[in-house]
Formats: sequence, structure tokens, C-alpha cells
Amino acid sequence: MDHPPFAVTVDLVVLTLRDELCALVVRRGIEPYAGEWALPGGFVRADEDLPDAARRELAEETGLAPGSVHIEQLAGYGAPGRDPRLRVVTIAYLALAPDLPVPSAGTDAAEARWVPVRALAAERLAFDHDRILADGVERARAKLEYSPLATAFCAPEFTVAELRRVYELVWDTRLDPRNFHRKVTGTAGLLAPTGRTTTRDGGRPAQLYRRGEAELLYPPMLRS
Amino acid sequence: MDHPPFAVTVDLVVLTLRDELCALVVRRGIEPYAGEWALPGGFVRADEDLPDAARRELAEETGLAPGSVHIEQLAGYGAPGRDPRLRVVTIAYLALAPDLPVPSAGTDAAEARWVPVRALAAERLAFDHDRILADGVERARAKLEYSPLATAFCAPEFTVAELRRVYELVWDTRLDPRNFHRKVTGTAGLLAPTGRTTTRDGGRPAQLYRRGEAELLYPPMLRS
Repeated sequence: MDHPPFAVTVDLVVLTLRDELCALVVRRGIEPYAGEWALPGGFVRADEDLPDAARRELAEETGLAPGSVHIEQLAGYGAPGRDPRLRVVTIAYLALAPDLPVPSAGTDAAEARWVPVRALAAERLAFDHDRILADGVERARAKLEYSPLATAFCAPEFTVAELRRVYELVWDTRLDPRNFHRKVTGTAGLLAPTGRTTTRDGGRPAQLYRRGEAELLYPPMLRS
Repeated sequence: MDHPPFAVTVDLVVLTLRDELCALVVRRGIEPYAGEWALPGGFVRADEDLPDAARRELAEETGLAPGSVHIEQLAGYGAPGRDPRLRVVTIAYLALAPDLPVPSAGTDAAEARWVPVRALAAERLAFDHDRILADGVERARAKLEYSPLATAFCAPEFTVAELRRVYELVWDTRLDPRNFHRKVTGTAGLLAPTGRTTTRDGGRPAQLYRRGEAELLYPPMLRS
């Protein structure tokens, strides 16, 4: 069996909404790229499956219980030379959560912060993390069209106006409130009414919803 | 730098349409799982990027030029114990092509054949390849809804009836010809008219189309 040795890592594109869509980056405390910004992540352990490694790194980097965070695999990256030490294949994960707190630094990270993805073009991240971050943001933007992923940015119970704010911030666009309300409440499996209302939006009592059962949305493309 | 050693492979879910949706499997010529059916694939070489390894394996296993085949990354799989020899992370790729020929056997494969995916439940493939194959079929089925992926199963120029046959075989369902025609010709970016017609369907002259420019389809979910 002739095969070269690899190391395997997981890297995390962690997205949250603050005043705008933000991604978590950490300043590397060790070589290579010491002192530079990178996505959080680390080596997969000998006895660990890939999703377990991703959830462990997420907990270490954000202090959050994995159960409160949507996490899905993004893609594998393995170009020769992407790590100057040896061949490293990384499996990137996309994690989304509502309004995450300022993170505590992870084990090999000196500092951590949220960076608005709007400023992505001006960032230079270590390794090939620019591309991984861009792929994660693109995945999130695309999936809002055809899945209930936007609800992962909301509290467990949310109003239509709160959901609309998610779409507006992730897509960096304005949506007509009345059309949006009609479309999301008319989309099978997207929303489950709780029967309760809230006035926390500041206006009239608004219905509170939970995420519905659908994994994919047919038909509506909300943007159309 | 404390990290365990891994090997990295690529595995291929190669789908084509014959009388029904079929996947390529090979009988393994070497241990582990010698004599059993598996997805085609192999170790990534020391100087090789992951997509290059996938295209090389595809050419070796099918004899097809990669340019004629749609190929995209499916996902990474790396559970401890999925290979009895050592930790192996595999990056799976999904490849689609129209009416592929019966393949020639690859370097470590004693035999290769197409298996109807309808018979999937009765197949027991080596490693975790049952799951990878099921994930690939599910990806293809889902993407037909929101992308022009179905055109990857067609010749470069195709009729609406030929495209409908793709949807019917992949989804294993019947679609109303008139509704289908209205929806696909009304979907922005899905089809590009060639201005030519054909009678190869056996009926009246039918328009020939090429794939349009769209990467994702908004709005229409054809099944709705």
C-alpha cells in the first residue's frame, strides 16, 4: 500500500449576526503564520470522527455548547503547499448561531474577534482561509434561498420581522416587509406557529414562530 | 506539532443514465475487502491536489476524458475504523455523465459494472461506501430542483423531451410533458436555444437546446 502521509485538520467558518454578518477569526499564536489572522481549527485526533473534531474545536473557540449551533460540513481542501509544514487536508465546517458573544481565545490562538464579512476583501488570512471563508459565506447566502437555514440565526422563537432582518443582513439587501411576510408564511414547512405573540419588535403584537419541519423549501425562492 | 498520521483517498460516485439511474462500482482486487464491490477511488499522491486526484481516478476507471464529465466535491468522510488498515480520510466526488460506456477495470479493480441505484438497498459495498453512494444520489436528486445539473446527463444539444427523461429517471417519477415544457422554457438561464430542430425524438421537429448560463435556478422548483 503506497500512500504519502497526511495530517488532517478541521477548520471552522463561524458566522453570526451582530450589526452585520460577521465571521470568527483568531490570531495565531504559533508558527506557521504566527501573529496572523486565521479561521479557528485544529488537528483531528487519532480516535475522533470529523464532526466530533469540528464540534470540539467550536466549543474550545467559542465556549458555546454545540447543541445551540447549526453546524454542517462545507468542503475539503488539500492543495499541496497549503501548509508549509507538510501535506495537510482540512475539512471545513460551517457553523451558524444567533448573536454569539465575543469569543474566548482557543488553545493555540492568542486572540479572537468577529470580522464583518463585508470587509472580507481587505482581509488576508493564513493558509487558504480566505477562500474557505468566502466559500462558507457563499454557501450560507445560497442556502437561505432553498432551505430554512436563516432560522439558525434566530432565537428558538422569532417573529417574521426578526427573520427578515436575517435575510437582509446575510444578503446585504432590503426586502419588502409585506411581500416577505406573505412568502415566508406561505412556504410549506418553513415556520411553525407557537400561538403566542410578542411586542418586542416595538409595534403591534407579532406572532412568534419556531422553525418548521422542512429541510428544503419548495417552491419559494424568497428573493424572486 | 502533535498530530496522528492519516492517509487520504478520493472516492467517486459516478452516475449515468442507462435504462435507469446507475452508479459505477468496482470489484476490489486487493485487501481489505478483496472480492467485494466498492466505489472507484484511490490514494491521493504526494504532489496532487484533491480535484486532480479525482479526475485522474475518473479517467483511470472509466477511460473518459474529464472534460466531458461534470464533477464536483461531495463531502469528506473520516470515521475512525472506516478502513481497517489505518486512519483514512476520503474526499468523495460526484461525477455525472450521459450514457457512459461499460467501464474498463482500473489498476486495483478486478471488474467494474453499473448498478441501478434502485437496487442500492440490496447492495453491500466495502468500507462506508453504501453511505457515500446514498449521499451522492441524494445530492444529485436534490440539485435537479435548484440547479441545471440535469443537463449534465444530456448530450451537449438536447430536446426538452430528453431533459424530461433525465428528471423522470433520476427522480423515478412521471412528469406531465406540457407542464414540464412550460416550466423549463420559462426558467431563466436553464436553457439556451440553438435555433436548430431535430426529429430524433420520433415526433414533430423539436427544438434543440444547450445548457444556459445559470448556476442556480430561481425560482422554479420543477416538481412543484
